[in-house]
Amino acid sequence: MIIIMKPGASAAAIDNIVEIIQNNGLETHLSTGHEVTIIGVVGDKTVLADKNLEIAEGVDRILPVTESYKLANKKFHPEPTVVTVGNAHIGGDSLVIMSGPCAVESAEQVMETAVAIKKAGAQILRGGAYKPRTSPYSFQGMEEDGLKLMKEAREATGLPVVCEVTSQAAIEAAVKYVDMLQIGARNMQNFFLLKEVGKTGLPVLLKRGLSATIEEWLNAAEYILAEGNPNVVLCERGIRTFETATRNTLDLSAIPVIRSKSHLPVIVDPSHATGVRDYVKPLALAAVAAGADGLMIETHPCPEKALSDGPQSLTFPQFEELCAVLRPIASLMGKPLI
Amino acid sequence: MIIIMKPGASAAAIDNIVEIIQNNGLETHLSTGHEVTIIGVVGDKTVLADKNLEIAEGVDRILPVTESYKLANKKFHPEPTVVTVGNAHIGGDSLVIMSGPCAVESAEQVMETAVAIKKAGAQILRGGAYKPRTSPYSFQGMEEDGLKLMKEAREATGLPVVCEVTSQAAIEAAVKYVDMLQIGARNMQNFFLLKEVGKTGLPVLLKRGLSATIEEWLNAAEYILAEGNPNVVLCERGIRTFETATRNTLDLSAIPVIRSKSHLPVIVDPSHATGVRDYVKPLALAAVAAGADGLMIETHPCPEKALSDGPQSLTFPQFEELCAVLRPIASLMGKPLI
Amino acid sequence: MIIIMKPGASAAAIDNIVEIIQNNGLETHLSTGHEVTIIGVVGDKTVLADKNLEIAEGVDRILPVTESYKLANKKFHPEPTVVTVGNAHIGGDSLVIMSGPCAVESAEQVMETAVAIKKAGAQILRGGAYKPRTSPYSFQGMEEDGLKLMKEAREATGLPVVCEVTSQAAIEAAVKYVDMLQIGARNMQNFFLLKEVGKTGLPVLLKRGLSATIEEWLNAAEYILAEGNPNVVLCERGIRTFETATRNTLDLSAIPVIRSKSHLPVIVDPSHATGVRDYVKPLALAAVAAGADGLMIETHPCPEKALSDGPQSLTFPQFEELCAVLRPIASLMGKPLI
Amino acid sequence: MIIIMKPGASAAAIDNIVEIIQNNGLETHLSTGHEVTIIGVVGDKTVLADKNLEIAEGVDRILPVTESYKLANKKFHPEPTVVTVGNAHIGGDSLVIMSGPCAVESAEQVMETAVAIKKAGAQILRGGAYKPRTSPYSFQGMEEDGLKLMKEAREATGLPVVCEVTSQAAIEAAVKYVDMLQIGARNMQNFFLLKEVGKTGLPVLLKRGLSATIEEWLNAAEYILAEGNPNVVLCERGIRTFETATRNTLDLSAIPVIRSKSHLPVIVDPSHATGVRDYVKPLALAAVAAGADGLMIETHPCPEKALSDGPQSLTFPQFEELCAVLRPIASLMGKPLI
Repeated sequence: MIIIMKPGASAAAIDNIVEIIQNNGLETHLSTGHEVTIIGVVGDKTVLADKNLEIAEGVDRILPVTESYKLANKKFHPEPTVVTVGNAHIGGDSLVIMSGPCAVESAEQVMETAVAIKKAGAQILRGGAYKPRTSPYSFQGMEEDGLKLMKEAREATGLPVVCEVTSQAAIEAAVKYVDMLQIGARNMQNFFLLKEVGKTGLPVLLKRGLSATIEEWLNAAEYILAEGNPNVVLCERGIRTFETATRNTLDLSAIPVIRSKSHLPVIVDPSHATGVRDYVKPLALAAVAAGADGLMIETHPCPEKALSDGPQSLTFPQFEELCAVLRPIASLMGKPLI
Repeated sequence: MIIIMKPGASAAAIDNIVEIIQNNGLETHLSTGHEVTIIGVVGDKTVLADKNLEIAEGVDRILPVTESYKLANKKFHPEPTVVTVGNAHIGGDSLVIMSGPCAVESAEQVMETAVAIKKAGAQILRGGAYKPRTSPYSFQGMEEDGLKLMKEAREATGLPVVCEVTSQAAIEAAVKYVDMLQIGARNMQNFFLLKEVGKTGLPVLLKRGLSATIEEWLNAAEYILAEGNPNVVLCERGIRTFETATRNTLDLSAIPVIRSKSHLPVIVDPSHATGVRDYVKPLALAAVAAGADGLMIETHPCPEKALSDGPQSLTFPQFEELCAVLRPIASLMGKPLI
Repeated sequence: MIIIMKPGASAAAIDNIVEIIQNNGLETHLSTGHEVTIIGVVGDKTVLADKNLEIAEGVDRILPVTESYKLANKKFHPEPTVVTVGNAHIGGDSLVIMSGPCAVESAEQVMETAVAIKKAGAQILRGGAYKPRTSPYSFQGMEEDGLKLMKEAREATGLPVVCEVTSQAAIEAAVKYVDMLQIGARNMQNFFLLKEVGKTGLPVLLKRGLSATIEEWLNAAEYILAEGNPNVVLCERGIRTFETATRNTLDLSAIPVIRSKSHLPVIVDPSHATGVRDYVKPLALAAVAAGADGLMIETHPCPEKALSDGPQSLTFPQFEELCAVLRPIASLMGKPLI
Repeated sequence: MIIIMKPGASAAAIDNIVEIIQNNGLETHLSTGHEVTIIGVVGDKTVLADKNLEIAEGVDRILPVTESYKLANKKFHPEPTVVTVGNAHIGGDSLVIMSGPCAVESAEQVMETAVAIKKAGAQILRGGAYKPRTSPYSFQGMEEDGLKLMKEAREATGLPVVCEVTSQAAIEAAVKYVDMLQIGARNMQNFFLLKEVGKTGLPVLLKRGLSATIEEWLNAAEYILAEGNPNVVLCERGIRTFETATRNTLDLSAIPVIRSKSHLPVIVDPSHATGVRDYVKPLALAAVAAGADGLMIETHPCPEKALSDGPQSLTFPQFEELCAVLRPIASLMGKPLI
């Protein structure tokens, strides 16, 4: 931690800060410049967390030097983490594709989708049973009935399934049926929910919040990891910007940034990011070329009849074609599609 | 609802859309231009919600004409709503100031604060017992013990109290102690939580999400209203932008926008918006001049010892001075401080 | 300047940095922590500007401690600057209102406006003769003919005039007719233009760029000041965010931030910020309550016939009413309308 | 164009709008709903451009249906444009890489770079002679001397050269030396400059503004095209968002969006977008996979000695390695590196 004093801070003010720090068992280093004095702090700064040095007499700014997340931090865990979901290994040697409808609507829809996406190359089936919707008057999901349909699809095809959870009740239901829990973008800082999915021990897919910085996202992962659950996969799904041509702005630079700061696997969801079917393929290819460990792609037997997010869903032939085009690029990137 | 067809859309494609709409009992009006055909839809469009016309053959875009929120909409409820919390009437003839610490820390802190802010002119005591924090290693609040301290402060001073809730368990505890529930910015689209606070019937302070549009914010209010709870107060607290000189960017234009679209009262929290104590006063004055129904201002007996957000808290003398400066402006705006 | 080394940076890497710095005549202070080593640099850091220490072996990050702007910096010029334009003193003891049409359209329009706004309380006439428009097919302004009309209005009413300049040719024409030059938001980082208006010595109204940080804005002012022209007035006019209910998001927190960092006067343009006539009054009042030195308000004899930005222009009766409501608030803030 | 009337707009108000439109020679279509009346307008709407119908009695909103850019619009020019610069064909069958230093610094630097990047696979040499810098105290470029060095490098290697221009004087100098003019992000809406580069007839590389929507960007291109210069290449280089882990947020979704709306070629600059050398390679690969027509990559013989933007520059071996990794992906995408 570095404390920058205001120009002209008095010697008494500087001494006061130094004393507070040293009284808390930490060491200080002073740099006295022409304009400002800087105090470097050495030792475990968490003991200063509640001291509010920012507003002590003479202090201009405090700059953190180390990240607040520890378990998610590559510095303390340099080896990449591989998260296993059924037969899929996210963060390992192959590209893992999750696919399925935005919302579970019927047994036929889910079963038909599971069969089609497995044939094309997907390894995990997605499908929402609890849908967070902007308006209370939109379709809110089939809830536990939807989870059951997902489980049946897994039993029929062997594909592990991932479903979003939006409350403690949803978690309690989901753990009976699914292989991986998803925290959606709107709940990325629902810290209560993060702790609860952490306690389940199940793999968690943690989507980035619409306006979350990468540092906040890794801190959200830290909430899950701190419950003793190491199985966290990050999912970039677009951030909110001023641009209106796409629903959100897919931030693919998040992939190399995450790689440099964390050991957790990271996948990309181009369907929600763009909201437009025609933009899914180019951005899926781009995500793989940028080094993603996997993709989440929405598919639907008949997108124009989907109850949620139809405009961004691929048909099965479109998904098959996407997988075919992806295959050689994934191989070039050292993460073949298996 | 307006459907804009692509240039060169075939007559068959246009007929298909018209047929779908009419089969759902709605009326259509065609405008056939040189470049594009536009289909106006008349009637209750909710029956089309799941038709995904956006991806039907030949369709370019669909533009909504009416807002998705109804109960929060001024069009259907032109009279301003007044929300009563203890003796305070938010949205009525006077300016209501809520004040208190970011986090409840001790009996002395809360009691001392309640007495001081009441004397200065505040009508409601705030204080967080459940704190959503970016890092799992930061102070997370006193929970139910904190709620009890808030209740004691109310009993001693007569000031009603408002506390944030972050989970169903927190709601269950809070309803026993507090007069108003707060939904924080990070939970603005935690739709499960919105429904739950709706069911309590208690007044709800709904903070704007960090990247929520005003339309999404009003839809979040709609979730609460739709549970039969009309007592919703909106709170602008800054949105996330590229600017780093302040913690967030306070969007005071939200006040006249809300006034033109909704009947719900709206207050402003300049403390969280700026994160800097020196900026609180000018922005509090600005909020009142822009027409706010109230303010939420953080205060602390000794900000440098606060366990949360000390740098933005006012001391009691600073808060007194703020109220003194506010008083004549509030009177000029027709909302005197009582 | 502070240099933060990577965890595990070698002693050789640290020595190398220290040597580079000392060879350039500066002093270093080392803080050696458990995780990282920090090097404080004392002395005139501009000699290191081109050394690219960021990418030297072992370096993690470099943090600047002092601002890059000097002439605009309050630290080196603590007294507030007052800019005189005709009889108006911006940054002084009174609130200065600039008003007039977005675009100059005709002699009658300009003359009628000048008379009306003067009567209501404005001290400076604005009017665009060179209009930067998103589309090349929109009205681009009357150019020098428009400047002449502005000068005639000044001669008739005594009001000084301010006009935007968008090129060297526009500057050469404008200096013959106007009292103050305006740099628009889109040209805030047109550094060539900033230098050229700096050379004229005329007062300059510098609008904030749509996505400019306050620090970049002050650096843009520095370009003008560095040409020996101290007469710069800043104008907040809204920044670009994700919100679409207003054209831009007016950032009133910029006022106290500027006050804490610079001695330059700052005014607010609520007309361009919101783009909606009904929102101009509440935000004009808010700007004055936040401490603005002045306002820029668009007016038009007949807004529905304006060639540019009619929807945000006030009629003369609306402007008169605004001034009447502003008057007592301006007096309370210690900046009466004269 | 669609005009949405307010709920309860009077018949007289509706008739008034219809009359204005018809008096201007256009046709109207009315959709009268339960809540609102909608007026569709058929014909050349530019005749209504200055009518300000938005503020006519009873009007709620006006929605444009067609884009304001025509020459840049794919609807009116469906074939992709290929821009020829020396031997390079941007938008054609191969991937075109532009490379070189951020700023021209010396004859040796430029010549050495030209030779190295040509050998690795680049087809165009870039180098800034006029540098727009945030602070007036940063290195501002070698100006005409820099242009001469670029020309010498072209004569020696045969590589065409591209240089940024920031003023009319810079254009006048540049046309004597360079093959392609660049408009930088900060000047994207410097409409005067756009017209001037349009008049030269030389190929123009138009960078996206830091907060420009894609629609504004295409309108900026329209300014150049409208001067009779069809040789415009768009360059995505990151937009400004709240994320601070990268200098800007590279918006790769802009590539498919541009493809769907315009016939102009589009390239990507991952160096300026990220500002971090280690992130350049993954995002360069991603850009090619997303369908870019080319890349702009900063290189320097010795990045730690660069006078501008060293931290994002690649060394020659790094650039060679990037080209080697790019080669098979470019081939897969149907745009081999030649």
